[in-house]
Amino acid sequence: MSRSPGRKQENHKISRELFVLTYGALVAQLCKEYEKDEDVNACLDRMGYSIGIRLIDDFLARSAVRKCRSYSETADMIAQVAFKMYLGVTPSVSCNSVTGNEFSLILDKNPLVDFVEELPAERASLCYCNLLCGVIRGALEMVHLAAEVSFLQDRLKGDAVTEIGITFLRKPEDRRHRRN
Amino acid sequence: MSRSPGRKQENHKISRELFVLTYGALVAQLCKEYEKDEDVNACLDRMGYSIGIRLIDDFLARSAVRKCRSYSETADMIAQVAFKMYLGVTPSVSCNSVTGNEFSLILDKNPLVDFVEELPAERASLCYCNLLCGVIRGALEMVHLAAEVSFLQDRLKGDAVTEIGITFLRKPEDRRHRRN
Repeated sequence: MSRSPGRKQENHKISRELFVLTYGALVAQLCKEYEKDEDVNACLDRMGYSIGIRLIDDFLARSAVRKCRSYSETADMIAQVAFKMYLGVTPSVSCNSVTGNEFSLILDKNPLVDFVEELPAERASLCYCNLLCGVIRGALEMVHLAAEVSFLQDRLKGDAVTEIGITFLRKPEDRRHRRN
Repeated sequence: MSRSPGRKQENHKISRELFVLTYGALVAQLCKEYEKDEDVNACLDRMGYSIGIRLIDDFLARSAVRKCRSYSETADMIAQVAFKMYLGVTPSVSCNSVTGNEFSLILDKNPLVDFVEELPAERASLCYCNLLCGVIRGALEMVHLAAEVSFLQDRLKGDAVTEIGITFLRKPEDRRHRRN
């Protein structure tokens, strides 16, 4: 559908509770469909990827951010602009490697699990929020950044915080060299 | 999860695009699972109902609205407060019956289909947004209002507007009489 250029930013703002409950319905549906947690996790990641490669256009248009010049800037952008915009929270960021390509987004509070008490015992390996990893991976790929994204800690599994790990796989310069 | 009472209203505000794309992934998943559109529609309605009976608490707490004294007030509340809060749009409301228990919410623009071009030919009977009907039905039931909710028109199907019909089934006084 076409968008009228005059629409105000405020029109896009919504309360997140309907989203959080709808996401819960999606995960519950996948749990009905797939017996193995790994299959649910993989499906959520795939769905997230498909979302990420479309969401990036919206993000770039709405945030009007400049091109990031380092992995560190990119990780900060995801945490401070994208998470804030789409989930209403701002994770803290830490760099996990001397090579400067591994980062963690650390959430004291994960809004996506607002209505989730705890995972059922038979779903101990479920990465409930795995869609987010796919979204980040898909969005990064569209700005020519290959990355592995996965949950390293999860409060739903008893960890103190929720931690999403992002490993950037190669520098853009490497990709250009490879192509030439 | 518990909520700290001091959380600011702003923390709940998010951009709706991630929600809209996630909803699309949910519908696509159900279309994979169910061959018949009617089954997808019924499943979306059931899911919505489960969401509505939980979302109503959030709505009452956050909106701080007073008790509605008529079906007409209730329909206005759904359109002007609930839709605005959770979808960022305000449908217009019309009353469709002399008995005053049938209303339509009319959306010139349906944000949930922002990324949907049109329904595939083989999905002509799909009520893409049927989750919303279930949400409204579930939420109303929790405030002791039985209602039938369904799509009467849908821009995705070529109609000029999207129209959700709400028929309130009986007045609360009737219910009290029946119980006594």
